Amino acid sequence: MSFVANLVSPIDGATYPADEPHTTHRERPLLVQYDLERVGRALDGADFTTRPSNMWRYRELLPDIPRESGIVSLGEGMTPMLQADALGSRLKINHLFIKDESQQPTGSFKSRGMSVAVTMARAFGTRRVALPSAGNAGGALAAYAARAGLEAYIFMPADTPPANIFEAQLAGASVFLVDGLITDCARIVREGVDRLNWFDMSTMREPYRVEGKKTMGLEIAEQFGWSLPNVIVFPTGGGTGIIGMWKAFLELTQLGLIDEDELPRLVAVQSDGCCPLVRAFEAGKPYAEPFPNPKTIARGLRVPSSIGDVLTLNALRQSDGVAVAVEEGRIREWMTDVARHEGISMGPEGATCLGAVEYLRKERWIGRNEVVVMFNCAAAQKTAGFPDSDNTPAVLLDKDHVDWDRITGSVTDNPPQGLE
Amino acid sequence: MSFVANLVSPIDGATYPADEPHTTHRERPLLVQYDLERVGRALDGADFTTRPSNMWRYRELLPDIPRESGIVSLGEGMTPMLQADALGSRLKINHLFIKDESQQPTGSFKSRGMSVAVTMARAFGTRRVALPSAGNAGGALAAYAARAGLEAYIFMPADTPPANIFEAQLAGASVFLVDGLITDCARIVREGVDRLNWFDMSTMREPYRVEGKKTMGLEIAEQFGWSLPNVIVFPTGGGTGIIGMWKAFLELTQLGLIDEDELPRLVAVQSDGCCPLVRAFEAGKPYAEPFPNPKTIARGLRVPSSIGDVLTLNALRQSDGVAVAVEEGRIREWMTDVARHEGISMGPEGATCLGAVEYLRKERWIGRNEVVVMFNCAAAQKTAGFPDSDNTPAVLLDKDHVDWDRITGSVTDNPPQGLE
Repeated sequence: MSFVANLVSPIDGATYPADEPHTTHRERPLLVQYDLERVGRALDGADFTTRPSNMWRYRELLPDIPRESGIVSLGEGMTPMLQADALGSRLKINHLFIKDESQQPTGSFKSRGMSVAVTMARAFGTRRVALPSAGNAGGALAAYAARAGLEAYIFMPADTPPANIFEAQLAGASVFLVDGLITDCARIVREGVDRLNWFDMSTMREPYRVEGKKTMGLEIAEQFGWSLPNVIVFPTGGGTGIIGMWKAFLELTQLGLIDEDELPRLVAVQSDGCCPLVRAFEAGKPYAEPFPNPKTIARGLRVPSSIGDVLTLNALRQSDGVAVAVEEGRIREWMTDVARHEGISMGPEGATCLGAVEYLRKERWIGRNEVVVMFNCAAAQKTAGFPDSDNTPAVLLDKDHVDWDRITGSVTDNPPQGLE
Repeated sequence: MSFVANLVSPIDGATYPADEPHTTHRERPLLVQYDLERVGRALDGADFTTRPSNMWRYRELLPDIPRESGIVSLGEGMTPMLQADALGSRLKINHLFIKDESQQPTGSFKSRGMSVAVTMARAFGTRRVALPSAGNAGGALAAYAARAGLEAYIFMPADTPPANIFEAQLAGASVFLVDGLITDCARIVREGVDRLNWFDMSTMREPYRVEGKKTMGLEIAEQFGWSLPNVIVFPTGGGTGIIGMWKAFLELTQLGLIDEDELPRLVAVQSDGCCPLVRAFEAGKPYAEPFPNPKTIARGLRVPSSIGDVLTLNALRQSDGVAVAVEEGRIREWMTDVARHEGISMGPEGATCLGAVEYLRKERWIGRNEVVVMFNCAAAQKTAGFPDSDNTPAVLLDKDHVDWDRITGSVTDNPPQGLE
């Protein structure tokens, strides 16, 4: 029983059959369109809580998988929705949450998209997948490709954190470092598609990664009891997170599972070192110009241009949301704030959400009683040992002559930050 | 309603009240003893599947938490039980699984113990917690202490992986590196307990970390439909994993939730570079001698002596299990095998399980049709950028003059390993 109707271009409504591989239409993404009446009948009386605790519990709203090929899964999804009361109290927001995507296979939200996209690539008979990546998507693709028995070719900027290179190589991917940006890597992948018949897994160049990202929206709805928060704040590089969640919410309203007047305002966060979507949003443009000379320690946000621009900007505007650029120089401070107040090891991308929420609360765009969800997209640990890191060096002790003054000197009489 | 009866010494049956902090009894651990009749009545007809998908769903088998202090949680537990069919096929084991503890807060199984232990430490009014750690426990303690509003003092060997130092400092812990082993760190912590009134969170020196580890056993039972696998293989440093799971299984049999004849055989795995428990097991001794000059890249297994030795050895023997030392020089090979065949980024500790299973299958100690569970205790990514790592350097490409021979040279005509 198929729930997928076809692939559709949101630009002009052109449709393509879903039972064969497709990439883009007029250089913009194709999306999966479901037969929602059929989905609605299948979901009638469904109790998600009794299903396995991963994102495939929403299988009626995910692509049809041919039975013989099966799902490529590492148990991704259903990440915790953690209360952030200490930060909330500091920011005067009564209901602040962090959805912790670091608790995923390979420690990042990229697993969701790759689980669906690799599943479909294998189902279509693909042997070799290729990807330009800022790091975490490459690590995730390498893992899912290994599990699926596919070869992976991954191109990353040369200054990608070592953990991403390590994880991709450990899983057997062929890893290439490029002395340039993710857009340079993307150009090489497209050339490889022509030369070597690779399957291009780039953001929005195949229609299934966004379906995986969509499950973040479905989980939020379930975790809030089939209701939705007022504001969702998401760090935005290529835009699939925003696009996927908005698609989820529209499908849920069409299914009658949530009310239209409950739709949240979506906030896309970028660093002021690379903020093409913010510039386009503020200029009222339908698409974004490439951002010149992008610089940010949040590698997942160092995306100067994306073919998801139009869909991202549409989702922000339709949701009465906003795009916010935060100060590049404060990202480390926000990482530290989240870790010290909430115990959550938030990667640099997710940490920008705190900057955006601080700003939007101060501007009263976010109200005290609103329900606000931020995202930790990836484990901070994956950026450890990286030149951008500026941890204080740990004190070195001689085991035979312990310097107790150094130890007691670190004991303060200040209350711990979490109790401020 | 309290489900805890008291704390008890498994050495001589001495009991202590559970509503105040205690450490050890005759230099050996105290365990939490439950009023299982009361637990049984509370669990009568309970449907765990409808409870939140984290380890606190088993709250009747976890310590009583005073209502006013609350649980310190980051959403830990209910990690996926992943099929390892590609490895199983190679090893001729029909039902091989990996429980993936890397999908936890801070990326390791240490979160389970720290959630319970920090919860209890705070409930008892503790302000400052201290710990000797090989790395992952320190990272976990730092996170939970931050969330609880406690100060954390963490002592690690100077050659601990950078990710562990990074995560602990990011969460605001005071981190000290010691030019020695975890046992040297432990000595300093004990001195700090006397000098500075720290609360000692060392393995088995407080009774609650093992209760957190116990939930691994409870989850296995639930994930196999309140049945149990034939063999559970666990990498063993301090021993809390084996001790905790065995405690879980005994409690479940007493509750009638599993049959006594379903109890699994437990396998403790150590590196031959540090295998005090294997030596004691093979010599038929009740406790282990300190292992001289321990050396292993699996930092969590570099534990030359542990006060959990007696309980670990008891659990192995009572379960008809075994302790196995695997070849230190092959750990990286097993990490690679698991990542390439299954897509699971298995840390060096967990990777030793593959060596043990290979050996035990060859010896026919494990049968073809047995159900076997291995553990991935922590994300391999947390050891990235570490001198022990021996990844092939990634190919560096010039973005303006892409060397396609380097790229096409990496494309093989061999089938990917997962399809062997």
